[in-house]
Amino acid sequence: MKKHILIGLSGGPSVAINASMAGVMKAAMESGQYDHIYGALHGVEGVLNGDIIDLSPFCSDEQLALLVQTPAMALGSCRKKLSPEEFWKVEEVLLQYGIGVFFYIGGNDSMDTVLKLSRYLREKNSPIQVIGVPKTIDNDLPVTDHTPGFGSSAKYLYHTMHEIIRDSEIYPVKNVVIVEIMGRNSGWLTLAGGLPMFLGGVYPQIVSIPEVAFDEKAFLETIRKELNTRHTVICAVSEGVRTKDGNYVGMETKSGAVDSFGHVYLSGVGKYLEMLVNREIGCKVRSIELNVLQRCASHLASKTDLDEAVLIGQEAVKAAEAGQTGVMMVYRRTSDAPYTIAIDAVDVAKVANLEKKVPQEWFNLNDEEVKAQICTYLLPLIKGDISPVCDETGIPRYVNIRSIHETK
Amino acid sequence: MKKHILIGLSGGPSVAINASMAGVMKAAMESGQYDHIYGALHGVEGVLNGDIIDLSPFCSDEQLALLVQTPAMALGSCRKKLSPEEFWKVEEVLLQYGIGVFFYIGGNDSMDTVLKLSRYLREKNSPIQVIGVPKTIDNDLPVTDHTPGFGSSAKYLYHTMHEIIRDSEIYPVKNVVIVEIMGRNSGWLTLAGGLPMFLGGVYPQIVSIPEVAFDEKAFLETIRKELNTRHTVICAVSEGVRTKDGNYVGMETKSGAVDSFGHVYLSGVGKYLEMLVNREIGCKVRSIELNVLQRCASHLASKTDLDEAVLIGQEAVKAAEAGQTGVMMVYRRTSDAPYTIAIDAVDVAKVANLEKKVPQEWFNLNDEEVKAQICTYLLPLIKGDISPVCDETGIPRYVNIRSIHETK
Repeated sequence: MKKHILIGLSGGPSVAINASMAGVMKAAMESGQYDHIYGALHGVEGVLNGDIIDLSPFCSDEQLALLVQTPAMALGSCRKKLSPEEFWKVEEVLLQYGIGVFFYIGGNDSMDTVLKLSRYLREKNSPIQVIGVPKTIDNDLPVTDHTPGFGSSAKYLYHTMHEIIRDSEIYPVKNVVIVEIMGRNSGWLTLAGGLPMFLGGVYPQIVSIPEVAFDEKAFLETIRKELNTRHTVICAVSEGVRTKDGNYVGMETKSGAVDSFGHVYLSGVGKYLEMLVNREIGCKVRSIELNVLQRCASHLASKTDLDEAVLIGQEAVKAAEAGQTGVMMVYRRTSDAPYTIAIDAVDVAKVANLEKKVPQEWFNLNDEEVKAQICTYLLPLIKGDISPVCDETGIPRYVNIRSIHETK
Repeated sequence: MKKHILIGLSGGPSVAINASMAGVMKAAMESGQYDHIYGALHGVEGVLNGDIIDLSPFCSDEQLALLVQTPAMALGSCRKKLSPEEFWKVEEVLLQYGIGVFFYIGGNDSMDTVLKLSRYLREKNSPIQVIGVPKTIDNDLPVTDHTPGFGSSAKYLYHTMHEIIRDSEIYPVKNVVIVEIMGRNSGWLTLAGGLPMFLGGVYPQIVSIPEVAFDEKAFLETIRKELNTRHTVICAVSEGVRTKDGNYVGMETKSGAVDSFGHVYLSGVGKYLEMLVNREIGCKVRSIELNVLQRCASHLASKTDLDEAVLIGQEAVKAAEAGQTGVMMVYRRTSDAPYTIAIDAVDVAKVANLEKKVPQEWFNLNDEEVKAQICTYLLPLIKGDISPVCDETGIPRYVNIRSIHETK
C-alpha cells in the first residue's frame, strides 16, 4: 500500500516558501512512492485540528507555477509550539490520514517541532518520517549556506535602498534617513541593505547590525561628521540593534509585547533614532520602516532564490525516499565563481533552536576585504528576475488553495 | 542667433519626472531651434544661485535611456516659492545664459512659479517663455486627465496591496492591517490601493480618502462587523483623512510641522488608527506606512506612465516652438477602450494652486458602478512593465548628473 505525504508551513511568511512546497509536490508526484498529497492548514495547528486538505487539484503544471510565484503561505501558517501532550494527537491524525512523511517548512522554531516530533515518533517505533525544509528571510539557520526566502528579501532590500538613496538626496538641505530593516538577532538582511555601500557607493554611510553593539554617541558623531561633507546621511539599521549591555536600542519606547516563543515583539527602532537625531542634531530626519514588504514583495523575487527553493523541496522528497527522518535540508555552497550549490540533509538537532549570526570577521563593515566578502556571499543569491504569469490587469496571478477550503 | 533652453525640476520626487526631462531634451535636440540645453540644480533655487549646468554630456541615447529609468530628480529639487523681489534675479540669470525657454517640471506649487514668472516676464515684454510640465504622484492637478508619475505610484500601490493581502491572512488569528497611503488632500493614490477590492476581491474592506469625512465610530463598527465573518481586515487609508470638522484624524498625535508652503507635515494616521483599534477592539493590529517607496519605486514603474511622461516633455518643446508661454501641458483622454490620449497646452492659471479631488460621484466606493468607473480610469494608467538597463549585479543603472557637478 502506498503512503501519503503531508505538507505544513510554519512561522513568518517569505516569498519562497510556496516554491519549496511546489518542489515537494512535484517530486512526490514524480516519485511514484506516494499516493495522496495532503496539506495541513496553518501548520501543526491544522494537524491538531484535522484541518487537512487534499492538494491534488493544485498539482497541475499551471497550478504549481502559480504556487511558485505566490508570496506568503498558500496553506496559511502558525506560530505554534507543540506541548508534550500534543505529540500523540499529531501522531493520531497522521495515522488517520495514512501519512508516511510529514514535510514541515519553516524557520528555527519550526525545526524545533521537526526535532521533537521526529524523536517522539522514533521512540514509539513509528515508521512516520518527519523532514524539515528551511525557510526564513532572516538567513539565521545554521549549517545551510543560506535559507530559502533570504535571497528575495535581500534583493528587495538592495533595490529598495538603491531607490531610497535617490529619493533622499534631492533637496539641498541637511537630512538624515533611517531605514529600519527586519532581523531580530542577526544582521543578514541589513547587510543586503548595505550593498550599495559595500559595492563602492557613498550610501548608506551607516550599517548597524544586532551582532555589533550600538553606541548612540558614536552613531550621532558619525552623522555629524558625514553632514560636514554632504547633505544626506542614510542609515541601514536592523530592528534588533542592541546596546553593549544587550538591551534593544530604544527599548523603553517600544511595545514590549512577547510572542508565544517568548520573543520580544520589535518595532520602532527607526522612529526612536529619528527622534534622537531630531533632538540631538536638529536637521531634517525621516525614518522608513520597510515593514512586511521585505518579506512579501514577490514582484522583486530573486530567480535564484525561487529556483533553489523548488529544488530544496524536491531534494526533501529524495531524502524521504532514502528513509531519512529528523533531518533538515541544507544548501552547501560548492563554489563562489561560478556560484554553485549542492543540497543535502543534516540532523535537525544541529539546526533547531540555533541561530546563525553574521560572523565576527565581518564586524568591521568599513574594511575593504570584508566588503568584498559580503558581496561575494550576497550577490549570487539575489540574481535573476522572474517572469510571473499575470492577469489582464498586469498583476501576478496567485494560487488560491485556502479560499476553497476556508470560510473564515 | 539660436536660443538656449533651461530645465528645472521642483517639488516632491516621482518615478516619471526624469522621463519628462528626457522628453524635453530629446525634442529640443531634434527641433534644431535651440542650441544648448541647460539644467538648473534644485529648481529655481539653482537659477537664483547660478547653479546651472550644461546637459550636453547627457544627451546621448544611452544617457537619455538611463535618465528615463532613474527615479526622483536627476537635477535635484527644491520647495521654493519665489518672493516678488526674486523675479528680476531669475530674469537676470536667464538672460545671462541666453535662455529662450524655461521648462519647469513640477506639481501645484511649481505651477504657481510658472504662472507668476511668466506673467512677470510678459509684463516686462521679455521674449523668454516659461512652460510648465506637470509632475505629481498625487494626481491632483486640474484639467489634465492624470499626472505623469501617478500611474507608476498607482501601480506600486496596487501590486503592494496585492502582496500585503497575502502576507496578512496567513494566521488563524483575528487581525487588522492599516496601510497608510500618500495623498495630502486627494484620495487618488488610496483608490489605487483599493483596486483589489474594486476589481471584485474581498480586500481591502475599508478604503478611506480625504474627500470623505472619516468617522472613527463607523470605522470601528465596520472592522467589528468584518471580523465576524473572517480573520483579517485590511484598510487602505489616506494620510490626509479628516473628520467631518475638517481636522486631520489623530492630528493631536502628529508632529504639526509645516513646510514652506504652509502645508502641515503629515505622518502617523496609520499608527494612530493602529492604537485606536488596539484600544477599542483589542485584536492583533499592524500599521504599514508605505512611505517614500510609493514615489520612488522605479522597479514597479508603469510603462504607460513613463512613455507618456517622455511624450509630454516632447510636446512641451513643440508648445515652446509655437511661441506659447505661461502654459502647462495636459493629457486629454480621447478614448477609454482602447485607451488613448492627446496632449495639449492650457493656461497655467487654470492649474496653479488648484487641486483636483476625487469627484463626489465616486464617494460611495461600495457602489458597483463606481467601482467599475474607478477601474476604467485607473487600469490603463498602470499598464506595462519596463525593462531597465541593469548593471552586472542586476540593479537598474541610474544617470549621474549631479554627482559630476556637486561636491555636497
